[in-house]
Amino acid sequence: MRLGQGVEWALHCCHALAEAPDASALPVQQLAALHGGNPAYLAKHLQALSKAGVVVSVLGPRGGYRLGRPADQIRLLDVVDAIEGSSPVFLCTEIRQRGPAALPPANYRAPCAIAAAVSSAEDAWRHALASTTIADIVTASRRQAPEAVTATARWLRETVD
Amino acid sequence: MRLGQGVEWALHCCHALAEAPDASALPVQQLAALHGGNPAYLAKHLQALSKAGVVVSVLGPRGGYRLGRPADQIRLLDVVDAIEGSSPVFLCTEIRQRGPAALPPANYRAPCAIAAAVSSAEDAWRHALASTTIADIVTASRRQAPEAVTATARWLRETVD
Ligand code: FES
Ligand code: FES
Repeated sequence: MRLGQGVEWALHCCHALAEAPDASALPVQQLAALHGGNPAYLAKHLQALSKAGVVVSVLGPRGGYRLGRPADQIRLLDVVDAIEGSSPVFLCTEIRQRGPAALPPANYRAPCAIAAAVSSAEDAWRHALASTTIADIVTASRRQAPEAVTATARWLRETVD
Repeated sequence: MRLGQGVEWALHCCHALAEAPDASALPVQQLAALHGGNPAYLAKHLQALSKAGVVVSVLGPRGGYRLGRPADQIRLLDVVDAIEGSSPVFLCTEIRQRGPAALPPANYRAPCAIAAAVSSAEDAWRHALASTTIADIVTASRRQAPEAVTATARWLRETVD
């Protein structure tokens, strides 16, 4: 089980957009260049974020992407779901109801104990991702790596037209 | 992000082995037939469980697989890791240290706030899977679907040589 690399990029893009000078829109090229990435690759992920409302695209000469709502209303879960899809991690196919020893459906009213346990682990994962917002990442990054945040903000400011 | 179907099969095999009459070994053919599955497909997953010590293979005419240790010492996490591998769900590639605004490594001593948040969600997932054992599944299944458990035990008993 693995999250795609797109999640790291998407989360860092949201972080960069939250720190964009004067909340300006940032073009894909600039978001990709910030961490030495490929604009075509990133464009795909930004479209997924845009479809989910996490970012919005702004047209025009100073166009690009900006956050779709305040950073404290964007949960890491929103970003992960936008990139990975929100279908369950574990898909129970009710194998317990198959085979020579299976009984009629009425005997399986309660969810399978195995499915229930794995689902509750999945809930714990989603709940944890839902409890952190991009605003929390902004705060933590400013505290933990202040020079890096300043350097990024400076670079963003200098490279915006 | 998705768990493979093998996880459902592996967990149900462990459950069946925990309910095997007189703790007898069950052959792959029987474990597969129990829920209408493919023996070759299941054999691959049983080998993975065996490699992880979750099950042991027993040679001889009444051979097959049995649990590698008591059911209350087999956590769902052990089974999921055996099938899916225990490498992290999220792999941070330190993209924050790449690109034109990056600073020397000394500025990134604290783990990236994004990586830390996603890792802690992963910890929550693993912790939840570690807090349920196959013995808990046995108990819950007997309570929730007693007729189905009885029917399975009867079928296992009748089809063991
Ligand atoms: S029947 Fe699907 S996990 Fe039990
Ligand atoms: S550098 Fe990898 S998640 Fe931040």
